[in-house]
Amino acid sequence: MPIRFTLETTDAQARAGSLSTDHGDVPTPVFMPVGTQAAVKAATPGVLKDVDATIVLANAYHLFLRPGIDTIEEAGRLHRFMNWDRAILTDSGGYQVFSLADLKKASGDGIEFRSHIDGSLHFFTPETVIDAEVRLGADIIMSFDYCPPYPCTRTQAEEAVALTGKWAARGAAVYGTRIERNGYEQALFGIVQGSVHEDLRRRSALELLEIGFPGYALGGLSVGEEKAQMLDIVEFTASLLPGDKPRYLMGVGTPLDLVESVARGVDMFDCVLPTRNARNGTVFTSSGKLVIRNAAYARDFSPLDPQCRCYTCRQYSRAYLRHLFMAGEILGPVLATHHSLHFYCRLMRDARGAVLSGSFFDWKKRFIDCYTSGEPDVPGASNRARENKEER
Amino acid sequence: MPIRFTLETTDAQARAGSLSTDHGDVPTPVFMPVGTQAAVKAATPGVLKDVDATIVLANAYHLFLRPGIDTIEEAGRLHRFMNWDRAILTDSGGYQVFSLADLKKASGDGIEFRSHIDGSLHFFTPETVIDAEVRLGADIIMSFDYCPPYPCTRTQAEEAVALTGKWAARGAAVYGTRIERNGYEQALFGIVQGSVHEDLRRRSALELLEIGFPGYALGGLSVGEEKAQMLDIVEFTASLLPGDKPRYLMGVGTPLDLVESVARGVDMFDCVLPTRNARNGTVFTSSGKLVIRNAAYARDFSPLDPQCRCYTCRQYSRAYLRHLFMAGEILGPVLATHHSLHFYCRLMRDARGAVLSGSFFDWKKRFIDCYTSGEPDVPGASNRARENKEER
Repeated sequence: MPIRFTLETTDAQARAGSLSTDHGDVPTPVFMPVGTQAAVKAATPGVLKDVDATIVLANAYHLFLRPGIDTIEEAGRLHRFMNWDRAILTDSGGYQVFSLADLKKASGDGIEFRSHIDGSLHFFTPETVIDAEVRLGADIIMSFDYCPPYPCTRTQAEEAVALTGKWAARGAAVYGTRIERNGYEQALFGIVQGSVHEDLRRRSALELLEIGFPGYALGGLSVGEEKAQMLDIVEFTASLLPGDKPRYLMGVGTPLDLVESVARGVDMFDCVLPTRNARNGTVFTSSGKLVIRNAAYARDFSPLDPQCRCYTCRQYSRAYLRHLFMAGEILGPVLATHHSLHFYCRLMRDARGAVLSGSFFDWKKRFIDCYTSGEPDVPGASNRARENKEER
Repeated sequence: MPIRFTLETTDAQARAGSLSTDHGDVPTPVFMPVGTQAAVKAATPGVLKDVDATIVLANAYHLFLRPGIDTIEEAGRLHRFMNWDRAILTDSGGYQVFSLADLKKASGDGIEFRSHIDGSLHFFTPETVIDAEVRLGADIIMSFDYCPPYPCTRTQAEEAVALTGKWAARGAAVYGTRIERNGYEQALFGIVQGSVHEDLRRRSALELLEIGFPGYALGGLSVGEEKAQMLDIVEFTASLLPGDKPRYLMGVGTPLDLVESVARGVDMFDCVLPTRNARNGTVFTSSGKLVIRNAAYARDFSPLDPQCRCYTCRQYSRAYLRHLFMAGEILGPVLATHHSLHFYCRLMRDARGAVLSGSFFDWKKRFIDCYTSGEPDVPGASNRARENKEER
């Protein structure tokens, strides 16, 4: 069955749609939990289904290095290896090659680098990366892109756009942009680069549009630039992309980032924030971030988020969660991750419902008011409110 | 409802029974997963129910220090605090005071010690410990005992027996041995000490029998003595205890220890082995221990234990589990713990079934033959077989 994106309705630039894959439908806007190494950290597939995640991420760079593409292919590809029968998206790992690996040589042909795990030497080309992603078997696979650092010179940004466009074309030339080698379709998405320069974003988008992908990603954002600037670039770039194709903002972001980006026309998100913060004892709630170890919660028997109906909030108190983190119990990260993934997935479901009912901007205002104001009746609320304001 | 033990049948000294509590029935022989700090490490209550655990342990010493008895009582006691509606047993923490804390002064009255967490100074008496356990609210609470080190002099062992007997009587004098202060009955169990000396074990047992407890534990075993000697003491001590009361062997042990101890008349067990080993990447299987990181499993797509029907074995391969451990993913300990708890709980269910059908000793021989022989068709089996033999 071909992968198909249906744009159901819009509310100004905000969109509600659905991405159909052979591993289930993905209603959008959607948050994709990050399972870099073929596992969402501290969450079983049971938890992911409990929070109604419809698609998760994995990373081809990490999996190439460990356990290796051959192993996963032999296991019956990624869905079977990690016991996830819903949709999967693999990032190519372009970002990771530049940020994690010991880079030896980048050229028009590809990139030579040393593994961040064991120092072994490898060479990636757009062709080898696409081949690896096809063999991993994700429903959506990403082009191999060049993500420049921030800040970078205009020349660097131009080079990144040029290389990303060239590599996108070479990647698409391997098997096409809709790949039918595993008994189901895999869709290849292009990635728009261009740093914070509108003209370069436009140039990058036009190059990709000429190739013609079934979906487009916005890469190289939330890498250090100001929030307002990021949102401007998101809005500008989204406006360049075809309405009937999904738009994926890579590696972003906070709950406020997601809501603001939905308002600017983005459909798909991934970010390590909910899972990474949860493991460190900070969760997202409808009234802002909550630091579980806060002494104020030692005898607070209310749930993490009184507005939340997740497993953790239905069954456990802040006092118990705090105890788990103070005592170093693995159950702390497990329960906190369950909550924060539920929060992110529900946030996107709520946003979708609001777009469908034509009330997205009312809903967005109410959400932001609550999220940034803190709860007046909860210890530490004023601190959290302040923290959230700084976060913007 | 009073806590009631029913001895259903015996097969030589092996017993099948049932312990009824207001938080459900506990069929015996039973393995009790260890939740020292009010959490079974890396296992949610959902996992514990999935492996059909009917009772879990917690530790009063640990909970007294963190988060404090007041906090748990205010939370609605232990069952509610940790979201576990089945039976709970609390160890008094006698063993932990002597093994973990910085001991300042032991006397007939009690023990002064410094917390292993923050060095704070505390004084435990048999009365304060029982009061703490009653407030924690477990269904079964343990007397405050004195567990001598091993090896120890005969004089030390005699002193431990004397102190344990005196403290058991003082503990029982506080609220009696069947306590009705929380709206359900809590049963106080006595603990037999006496190191490896039969006459001291007899003296200790007789002192406790005179007080009259609804259950008896065998303490101070598996602390360094030879396995054969441990099993002799288990058999001897069990023979001194009344047939109509449950017998609990504290802190023991390997799958073989459990099976051999059931053969000698023990009904209840707890041990950190399955959970601790699982977190470190070693699981128990029907053909012995399996070290998940073993390179032989890198492309082994069979389950951890082909004879196991647990969630982990139904859904995941050895190759995936190995990948999780090599990659440092929390999901590795979570899935390995799920398996090993299932293995221990099923082992005791199988033992019970065998006693009920009068075939315990046949079953025991088959189990041990398989457990110690390793699987001939599995990589690393010969190593595991050797390792298991050494373990005895």
